[in-house]
Amino acid sequence: MRAMWFDTPAIRTLIDLALTEDIGTGDAATLTTVDPELMGSAGVWAKSEAIIAGGPLFALVMQRLDPTLVVTQHVAEGQRVTPGTRVLTIVGRVSAILTAERLALNFIGRMSGIATYARACADAVAHTDTIILDTRKTLPGFRSLDKYAVRTGGCGNHRTALDAGILIKENHIMAAGGVAQAVKRARSGGSHLLKVEVELEALSQLEAAIAAGADVVMLDNMTTAELSEGVTQVAGRVQIEASGNMTLPRLAEVAETGVDFISLGGLTHTVTVADLSLRLDK
Amino acid sequence: MRAMWFDTPAIRTLIDLALTEDIGTGDAATLTTVDPELMGSAGVWAKSEAIIAGGPLFALVMQRLDPTLVVTQHVAEGQRVTPGTRVLTIVGRVSAILTAERLALNFIGRMSGIATYARACADAVAHTDTIILDTRKTLPGFRSLDKYAVRTGGCGNHRTALDAGILIKENHIMAAGGVAQAVKRARSGGSHLLKVEVELEALSQLEAAIAAGADVVMLDNMTTAELSEGVTQVAGRVQIEASGNMTLPRLAEVAETGVDFISLGGLTHTVTVADLSLRLDK
Amino acid sequence: MRAMWFDTPAIRTLIDLALTEDIGTGDAATLTTVDPELMGSAGVWAKSEAIIAGGPLFALVMQRLDPTLVVTQHVAEGQRVTPGTRVLTIVGRVSAILTAERLALNFIGRMSGIATYARACADAVAHTDTIILDTRKTLPGFRSLDKYAVRTGGCGNHRTALDAGILIKENHIMAAGGVAQAVKRARSGGSHLLKVEVELEALSQLEAAIAAGADVVMLDNMTTAELSEGVTQVAGRVQIEASGNMTLPRLAEVAETGVDFISLGGLTHTVTVADLSLRLDK
Amino acid sequence: MRAMWFDTPAIRTLIDLALTEDIGTGDAATLTTVDPELMGSAGVWAKSEAIIAGGPLFALVMQRLDPTLVVTQHVAEGQRVTPGTRVLTIVGRVSAILTAERLALNFIGRMSGIATYARACADAVAHTDTIILDTRKTLPGFRSLDKYAVRTGGCGNHRTALDAGILIKENHIMAAGGVAQAVKRARSGGSHLLKVEVELEALSQLEAAIAAGADVVMLDNMTTAELSEGVTQVAGRVQIEASGNMTLPRLAEVAETGVDFISLGGLTHTVTVADLSLRLDK
Amino acid sequence: MRAMWFDTPAIRTLIDLALTEDIGTGDAATLTTVDPELMGSAGVWAKSEAIIAGGPLFALVMQRLDPTLVVTQHVAEGQRVTPGTRVLTIVGRVSAILTAERLALNFIGRMSGIATYARACADAVAHTDTIILDTRKTLPGFRSLDKYAVRTGGCGNHRTALDAGILIKENHIMAAGGVAQAVKRARSGGSHLLKVEVELEALSQLEAAIAAGADVVMLDNMTTAELSEGVTQVAGRVQIEASGNMTLPRLAEVAETGVDFISLGGLTHTVTVADLSLRLDK
Amino acid sequence: MRAMWFDTPAIRTLIDLALTEDIGTGDAATLTTVDPELMGSAGVWAKSEAIIAGGPLFALVMQRLDPTLVVTQHVAEGQRVTPGTRVLTIVGRVSAILTAERLALNFIGRMSGIATYARACADAVAHTDTIILDTRKTLPGFRSLDKYAVRTGGCGNHRTALDAGILIKENHIMAAGGVAQAVKRARSGGSHLLKVEVELEALSQLEAAIAAGADVVMLDNMTTAELSEGVTQVAGRVQIEASGNMTLPRLAEVAETGVDFISLGGLTHTVTVADLSLRLDK
Repeated sequence: MRAMWFDTPAIRTLIDLALTEDIGTGDAATLTTVDPELMGSAGVWAKSEAIIAGGPLFALVMQRLDPTLVVTQHVAEGQRVTPGTRVLTIVGRVSAILTAERLALNFIGRMSGIATYARACADAVAHTDTIILDTRKTLPGFRSLDKYAVRTGGCGNHRTALDAGILIKENHIMAAGGVAQAVKRARSGGSHLLKVEVELEALSQLEAAIAAGADVVMLDNMTTAELSEGVTQVAGRVQIEASGNMTLPRLAEVAETGVDFISLGGLTHTVTVADLSLRLDK
Repeated sequence: MRAMWFDTPAIRTLIDLALTEDIGTGDAATLTTVDPELMGSAGVWAKSEAIIAGGPLFALVMQRLDPTLVVTQHVAEGQRVTPGTRVLTIVGRVSAILTAERLALNFIGRMSGIATYARACADAVAHTDTIILDTRKTLPGFRSLDKYAVRTGGCGNHRTALDAGILIKENHIMAAGGVAQAVKRARSGGSHLLKVEVELEALSQLEAAIAAGADVVMLDNMTTAELSEGVTQVAGRVQIEASGNMTLPRLAEVAETGVDFISLGGLTHTVTVADLSLRLDK
Repeated sequence: MRAMWFDTPAIRTLIDLALTEDIGTGDAATLTTVDPELMGSAGVWAKSEAIIAGGPLFALVMQRLDPTLVVTQHVAEGQRVTPGTRVLTIVGRVSAILTAERLALNFIGRMSGIATYARACADAVAHTDTIILDTRKTLPGFRSLDKYAVRTGGCGNHRTALDAGILIKENHIMAAGGVAQAVKRARSGGSHLLKVEVELEALSQLEAAIAAGADVVMLDNMTTAELSEGVTQVAGRVQIEASGNMTLPRLAEVAETGVDFISLGGLTHTVTVADLSLRLDK
Repeated sequence: MRAMWFDTPAIRTLIDLALTEDIGTGDAATLTTVDPELMGSAGVWAKSEAIIAGGPLFALVMQRLDPTLVVTQHVAEGQRVTPGTRVLTIVGRVSAILTAERLALNFIGRMSGIATYARACADAVAHTDTIILDTRKTLPGFRSLDKYAVRTGGCGNHRTALDAGILIKENHIMAAGGVAQAVKRARSGGSHLLKVEVELEALSQLEAAIAAGADVVMLDNMTTAELSEGVTQVAGRVQIEASGNMTLPRLAEVAETGVDFISLGGLTHTVTVADLSLRLDK
Repeated sequence: MRAMWFDTPAIRTLIDLALTEDIGTGDAATLTTVDPELMGSAGVWAKSEAIIAGGPLFALVMQRLDPTLVVTQHVAEGQRVTPGTRVLTIVGRVSAILTAERLALNFIGRMSGIATYARACADAVAHTDTIILDTRKTLPGFRSLDKYAVRTGGCGNHRTALDAGILIKENHIMAAGGVAQAVKRARSGGSHLLKVEVELEALSQLEAAIAAGADVVMLDNMTTAELSEGVTQVAGRVQIEASGNMTLPRLAEVAETGVDFISLGGLTHTVTVADLSLRLDK
Repeated sequence: MRAMWFDTPAIRTLIDLALTEDIGTGDAATLTTVDPELMGSAGVWAKSEAIIAGGPLFALVMQRLDPTLVVTQHVAEGQRVTPGTRVLTIVGRVSAILTAERLALNFIGRMSGIATYARACADAVAHTDTIILDTRKTLPGFRSLDKYAVRTGGCGNHRTALDAGILIKENHIMAAGGVAQAVKRARSGGSHLLKVEVELEALSQLEAAIAAGADVVMLDNMTTAELSEGVTQVAGRVQIEASGNMTLPRLAEVAETGVDFISLGGLTHTVTVADLSLRLDK
């Protein structure tokens, strides 16, 4: 999916929670040191190399605090910046800019950090047809933001929510009494627009899964050799997702086995924030 | 501060946002594969070494979805676990456990990840009187959770919100027209229960800050040698916080200069989640 | 899907909105005429034949107003009742029962009304393999309740939300520049766990849709003869949904053409509420 | 009451709930098939005869999703349209129009359906002085919308909430120990600006109700002959409302008995939605 | 009305707002000085004479922070206490008691202050049939609490909200073009269960108001002599409310003119809080 | 602090609660008597002498109901008005002005009442260096509004929330086991940016408090003579706050003892509202 999707009621609630927790009853430093009438402008600068994601959210936070602030984005979403690049300009009441600064940076820093890592992952498998996917290991409340950042970086999204796809995991298989039983139940009980994917711990489960009607199999925690064998055995009958212990250095090798997808929880659960800072213009 | 503080209206709102974004109109995999009447128990297991933080929040999430689930914590907050340790037990409706699993793990994984890193930082300076502090670079909406995890790991909290201390930063100094002017304004305009800290880019600003009445000076982005010189020059007249480019390997050396505090944004902005997983008991 | 899914943050918010709008600053009739200490019990009685759905929601509303009320359901969800059947018993503070009565009945009346009609539809095609589906023409805020009632009546759910399946409609085709282009974009841009369905206005579009990779075709506003021809032409290559101007009397005939699904907006947009009333026991 | 009343905090909350439930993490079909930059216009067209109600709410929903959308209403609230009439025009980002389409239509369809039926009821008694009233059998959360639609159709509103009038029903009478006792309590305990109405099951209760000070009597589930007798017996001493088993065909006959009001739950609980659809302009 | 009505969604939201604004990210004094495991009990003591109102709300606040706290009320709602009386006991986690203390006291202090003054007003007119009423000059968000406290003190409630009675004020008269016109419009346009009251600035408007169908007239800012004259002139045709510049010392005199109601904004807009304090038991 | 801080998510929620509680399903008087198309203007007039505070909040309430209303403030925040002064002008839809009138006045009346009293207190000690402070005895939900009004009147704010300063009170001392122990715990456990103040019941506790590291001592419920003695004994080692039984007539005398601060709960808990009224312009 290409478009942004984050000016929603849920995201507005999240921003409100975050403004409230940060500001409490007022920004003591700004209220005492900055003339409330002072107008000015500020820049957001990259201090490290990064893929920019979340500029519109940065603007949303600024304007949620003060609707008269004007924010201009100089670098398109998904574009790479080098240290020293001016990414955004904010014009308006200086006190409002300083009070919202940290929160707005916290959002864009995380989102750009995700996009930066996603881009590296996407580049690593660009010579293959494999698509790198995220997981549901996003920050609570940040699902749509985290998934947007992953897309902006060039990777794909696994299901966005529990109702947007059927992924049968080990615990479901145990509760259902086996792979075949779980897949069959999902097949017959689920919406006709949702595909069924099943997580397998061993290649020996493959035929049961396919026979029961799985659309996709997830091969979990397997070696590259096992994955290769899986690709051969499946022979195109269903799609294959490789998952578990996937790290950037290993992606190319895994992709070359011919799996359709590789999923990485780390895309969103262990994020190195992009280093961006805000400075008032002189 | 020692105690937990997270069963608040704001955290309940955050959990609700996160449950809604994750579950949407229903957990398709669980609804189709798991008998809704099935009762059982599950364990949360450590898959890597970690300091545990957030067990009570894990329980809160589970019970927000299904108030009849019973959660028992086997490892105290702040205690270290090795791979293979059973951290929590959940007993009740299996379908509810599976639907809440990912969200509850996402919270405790992040919090334990923060605590684990905080413990390493605290240990690195344990031979000195220096206290390691976090910053306001927490996840939006997660301020109280992130700060709690930092404390659980053994570090201290910098101001928790913009009204809980006066920290004058470079932009405030620019807006106020200089270090002395900014500090004086904060001194006279702020609450009598808030101390005034000022961020300095160079040691040459020290005397002006102290003369104007700062309680604490933050020495930003300085070399260890500069920090040592700052400690000598200040000679106990105010407290000193070292900040900027602080990383775990450098902490001992910096602490040994005699600064009172070292602050690390990375404690909360770049978190490696602790690897915890949930498995149904057989 | 078999299970209930409605004790969620969103439904609790909806109940709160509804309690507030109905009660305002207090139930004037009850506060003036009923002794606030009076304890008693009441029954909910069917006044017409109906399929019961929403008993647990009835209880939720009662207990949201007064957590000490005890509600017992005598008729299982999905079971048919005849006039004069006692469906539920509520025991506790009489004033609370009377204040919550109308709201709780409004919910269960609508849900049972939906289930009753859904059962009639399901029965009409029971001699075929066709499944009757609802649509997104549910009441705003009632999606999960309406869809649950449809399932309780014995029909199936079309996608529950805009992220839980890809249904390309006429306007999308126009915006994308044609059936083939729209289907191809959805194929490549959508999540790998979502199937792609496309709404067709004429059988002449069938081959383009199938060639472009559609998983399901919706034949919209067609005669039974056209639908039959469609089934023949498709010959099992994709699934077929018949839609538009579907009414209960026509369902059997349409199902006998061999389409996989028939969808009816009327299942949820034009509901005849089930007639249930609450009477205090003597 | 003549004016609209629906841009309230409660209605904004309802719209937010409904947008969130419908869109989840994004509109998969629109995001994949429609260019996010594409601008255009769309029309809402009547496909059946109807009285239009809710155009401003349609606009509110559209703009809650995308504040830059411009909505123009071509048919005044309360005006009748024939099939093929263009009711509204929306101009702006096509993807936003398509994502909000279903929700906005669900609201205006219901409201116009109510207004259409209300108009038929009002017309049926136009030759008398009787006023047709709705009840509290509105959709939970939709009270102000449903009541507005009833007024737009030309009928009147019974009490809008439990604090906006005192209506003593059978259960209150039972709890209070009789008609006289209930009416007297309400008389003395209620606000001086609220009238007291009492529901009677038999004409034999009339004199007790009037003697106790009722302002209005509701004659419930009576035959037209009984109602006539009631009108004669009351002889203008109090107002009379006829209720129970009132259907459109019966309204004229009942009105001709001289009752002041006839109330119909069906005005809002069993609604046939007006058939409106949205089409992009070419 | 006799009963309490405050455990509502709106009041829960108000308590949550207040807890959040007061506690922010944690109660610094309590977290640092009180052992989080310490259990104990505390008493709420009257430090001045007062009528107690709001004990159940005090308990609600305590339990919203910590559901395990047990609160016992020793003095019934509406009962008078002398200094040194123990009003409530709270048992449980000491840290929770201390953190919630101020907020819970702020609520009960205001409510008891209102009830105390209301009791004095009610006593002042006890030898007449006049009822003392409050107004809509309540604290924003506190309508139901303030009105409850007024009732607890022994006075009555004027309309509780803008939809719970029709009170035509000077500005409405100006907008409608005169007293007669305004009253007639309200008569014909309003709900049949709402009475119509009109505010009059001069006795010369009386006949127009009565002729147009007013149920109640409010004589605003008149001398006692004018009020007497008004009572004589009205001669029981409508009810009379005296309003404007009503103070406790003047109430008896005004009541003795025979007016039905006297309303005082000061009952709720200018409140002297009751002096209550919380002390841990030794 | 000089600036306003009240257009926050929490204040918007409070306004929404208050609009909902006041308006319910509609303003019956305005809807029936005022033409919904009527445009006009209105003035807010002072009817008593007052210091104006809260004009921007008045505007916020008006615009929350109807964003097209234009509000102009003629008297600056903190300026004194005499009876008959026009304070604000509102231009727009008359019906919206009248519906929002009471709520908007309730806010500005309270805030101006607080500011008026605060000004009198500040004036009473203007010949000394003592600063008059408020307390946390603000109305629940109104903390930031009440504290702003206090500042507008010329007094200072004590801590704004429980995390914005450490104030050890009698109950904490009891729980901790003594003054010295409590102060030491707060010193070592609290944030480095928060000062520690301790409430003392007797001068005999002074040395223990200072020795343990208190930054400020609160001398509670002492005579002026005791306060003088306290000032002498402390001799500038810590700051002193006088508290308890402080009333306007006594302030000058207390200030002349040389205490740094005097705090009055009455500044915000027992407020005489400023008398302001709204009249449509002819």
